[in-house]
Amino acid sequence: MSEVVPFGDRLAAAFAAYGRLCVGVDPHAGLLDAWGLPDSGEGVREFGLRVVDAAAGHAGIVKPQVSFFERHGAAGYLALERVLAEARDAGLVVIADAKRGDIGSTLAGYADAWLRPGSTLEADALTLNPYQGLATLLPVMEQAAAVGKGVFVLAATSNPEAQALQTAELRRSSRAGETIAAAMISGIDSWNRERPDAAQRTFGDAGVVIGATVDLPQMGVDPDAYGERPTLPVLAPGFGHQGGDTGSIREVFGPLAAGVIVNESRSILATGPDEIGETVRRRAGEVAELGV
Amino acid sequence: MSEVVPFGDRLAAAFAAYGRLCVGVDPHAGLLDAWGLPDSGEGVREFGLRVVDAAAGHAGIVKPQVSFFERHGAAGYLALERVLAEARDAGLVVIADAKRGDIGSTLAGYADAWLRPGSTLEADALTLNPYQGLATLLPVMEQAAAVGKGVFVLAATSNPEAQALQTAELRRSSRAGETIAAAMISGIDSWNRERPDAAQRTFGDAGVVIGATVDLPQMGVDPDAYGERPTLPVLAPGFGHQGGDTGSIREVFGPLAAGVIVNESRSILATGPDEIGETVRRRAGEVAELGV
Repeated sequence: MSEVVPFGDRLAAAFAAYGRLCVGVDPHAGLLDAWGLPDSGEGVREFGLRVVDAAAGHAGIVKPQVSFFERHGAAGYLALERVLAEARDAGLVVIADAKRGDIGSTLAGYADAWLRPGSTLEADALTLNPYQGLATLLPVMEQAAAVGKGVFVLAATSNPEAQALQTAELRRSSRAGETIAAAMISGIDSWNRERPDAAQRTFGDAGVVIGATVDLPQMGVDPDAYGERPTLPVLAPGFGHQGGDTGSIREVFGPLAAGVIVNESRSILATGPDEIGETVRRRAGEVAELGV
Repeated sequence: MSEVVPFGDRLAAAFAAYGRLCVGVDPHAGLLDAWGLPDSGEGVREFGLRVVDAAAGHAGIVKPQVSFFERHGAAGYLALERVLAEARDAGLVVIADAKRGDIGSTLAGYADAWLRPGSTLEADALTLNPYQGLATLLPVMEQAAAVGKGVFVLAATSNPEAQALQTAELRRSSRAGETIAAAMISGIDSWNRERPDAAQRTFGDAGVVIGATVDLPQMGVDPDAYGERPTLPVLAPGFGHQGGDTGSIREVFGPLAAGVIVNESRSILATGPDEIGETVRRRAGEVAELGV
């Protein structure tokens, strides 16, 4: 059996080699049309493979948006299996953005699909939804880490509708008084810090999702509370098209900037199949030079 | 174009014809083994088709647990497409238990997969996760209702790990002071009541998920707050194997009992492929006689 490379180490290596740009793979109907591809399983396969090809060797991370493959049912999943395999073969770190959440054996089923070595849908990390309790996710986090996989738990998202729920204050919890957004970030950060090898690691194996345009203090989150050099991976969607400005990462995320994965989807994808290679190269370089 | 029958009306018709039993379709590895089926796409297809066959004509509702099909990737989804189609052809009301959640066009992609007439994964209703804000789900609820489909939004779940998040109190919301569980139930109930045809309807088209063994007052939910004859569909997993007692529905849910869908999965499925037909018949009859 080959040695397991921890997910956090793979992330650190991707940052070192290519910087922190993560290219979204979002084949929604409008983009398929703009790319001259059919709105079908075949279309999303072609789209996904071209994005992987453009990213390989220039960016370190890709994030397929599972919804746009699931739209096409089994045919879409067959396409996604191919895209995931090609991306992993190309050495990209692959984050399946599926936002799955459940409990017990049902949640374990999702983990089995996305994080089990040898699964047809195998990715390197999976986004998770904590509505049924952060503690429900812990067994999956343990199992994922044991096989070199990671998770990103939804914490503070940029969409305005999220404010009401994510700023609610815990009452019946050891984190009473914290907002949900803060409790998710603190909970995942603590989990990373309590791992046996935490002291030797640049990044933990579990991260959070925080939107690129979130106002963290408004969400009850103090970005200075996680030390001077946090080890928390932060998947940050919303750069580019959705208004996040890579120049202000340090301002928005404070010390948490250390772990920020800059996800750009539409601003890159909208340049089209002929330009995307050049766009990825340029954006990867620009993001690498930010020096956060 | 044929007339659209609202989801809530289809639910009311299923209750009238067969009672409120909903048979879970949960082909997890342990059950596949017990049934003598392979842990593969073929296995979950055979399992699902046998459960549908056992339910047809005896129960009104089935709930496939998507995780156990997704475990098998595209092959699992191909099996699920077949199971969903057979269940709908048999006249069963089919609730896809996928607990999907996201925003904007990404959430719309999930709705397209599960609730669009003609989709290969077409079901009658879909479970949704509101972590990114209940308001993110409203456009999907509108679109679903327009084509005779329904949704069930996670509100108060039975697993102990859910307490911390679901009892958090809203601060920045018109429902400030309410727990998240209560706000989800009130939000969905209000949406149903504000529909143009609300006064003529037995059930609304949007429901909630409330666990069978939840202590509603402890979750900050007053079950008497929704009128004497609520129109809110309540998908209640956790009867049978997980400890929910159908005899105490009225006690647990108060007036909300009117809309309770009694979901039983393992207690029925564990009786095996030879006994399941008889088990469904017996349980459907017992649940129908509860007279809640």
